[in-house]
Amino acid sequence: MTSPYSFESVDLAQFGHEDRYKFLMASVIPRPIALVTTLGADGFVNAAPFSSFVVLSVDPPLLGISVARRDDGSIKDTYRLVEASGEFVIHTVDTAMAKQVQQCSAALGPTQSEVEHAGLYLVPSIKVKPPRIAQAPIHFECKLHRIEYFGDRRSALIVGEVVQTHSREGLVHGHRVDPLEADILGRLGGGVYCSSTVIIKP
Amino acid sequence: MTSPYSFESVDLAQFGHEDRYKFLMASVIPRPIALVTTLGADGFVNAAPFSSFVVLSVDPPLLGISVARRDDGSIKDTYRLVEASGEFVIHTVDTAMAKQVQQCSAALGPTQSEVEHAGLYLVPSIKVKPPRIAQAPIHFECKLHRIEYFGDRRSALIVGEVVQTHSREGLVHGHRVDPLEADILGRLGGGVYCSSTVIIKP
Repeated sequence: MTSPYSFESVDLAQFGHEDRYKFLMASVIPRPIALVTTLGADGFVNAAPFSSFVVLSVDPPLLGISVARRDDGSIKDTYRLVEASGEFVIHTVDTAMAKQVQQCSAALGPTQSEVEHAGLYLVPSIKVKPPRIAQAPIHFECKLHRIEYFGDRRSALIVGEVVQTHSREGLVHGHRVDPLEADILGRLGGGVYCSSTVIIKP
Repeated sequence: MTSPYSFESVDLAQFGHEDRYKFLMASVIPRPIALVTTLGADGFVNAAPFSSFVVLSVDPPLLGISVARRDDGSIKDTYRLVEASGEFVIHTVDTAMAKQVQQCSAALGPTQSEVEHAGLYLVPSIKVKPPRIAQAPIHFECKLHRIEYFGDRRSALIVGEVVQTHSREGLVHGHRVDPLEADILGRLGGGVYCSSTVIIKP
């Protein structure tokens, strides 16, 4: 059978880093969002969103977030704090939290708190030291399982084992989360997010 | 500050496999979809969708899809064929393809083709042997980079290096894909998908 479509074909190796990044991130959509809290030795709570977020295993429950390195080789505080402490909390976020997610993605100075900046309420976790964000609908307390590195820039896939879960009262029905009720926020890129409540049942 | 929210707290280890799977998959949403073609030694073309799909590196471009094992320990043909051939094509899909994606996720007999079943048009790839699906808006020709295994059931994270990309004519503007134009399909789970075109700009 012949195709009714025409294509533009490119080798992404011909692109610069920034354009290659944009092409990939605009193609692999919609992405789930992991808003991650970590705790520094000084008691400072860090909160940052990651949208390369994936379920890697069910037995035991393992979640992965990919953390890219900047042009200068440096990497986000989340990576540094997870590596040092072995503990973090992953939150899924709803559309009501869109502005807060965007605020947490902003690069602040090392003594400025995203948590304060975004007006997040913290509550204690049960099995890990980093606190949880009360506004988020679902919380996964995680202990570091392992870190895998990918590519020339050694992007880090942080893999956490979920040791405790919290869901907003009434959100889970018979072990299931209702996607319409949860109103979870997706990420498209470049400060642009999407709703996941426009349902398609083929 | 105190929380205005109440939570239900559970340890997912208390759930059975199926319930743990459902809880995780209903929480980590919306998920991007990778419709993957592989080629058997007999020339048979396999097509299957995966929604644990993640960008792992930009330099070089590495994409990951997680392939879970069934209760009996068996694993999807995609895994077997990628391991044997080292080549596959990942397609992102739009809402017009929702029915076809769902049809490709159905378990058919080993001699039945999802490609025929779903009415997909195949066109040749440039750098790999498995053909591409003409209806899909974006195609990533991939060579196997490595496979990482996670959890007791050894779920496989298949990591492919993108060696050639194809995008539907007119879809990419200055290395960027317009998410509204692309109308990419997201996955929520259980035969339910979502549109990613309800934009939120916080």
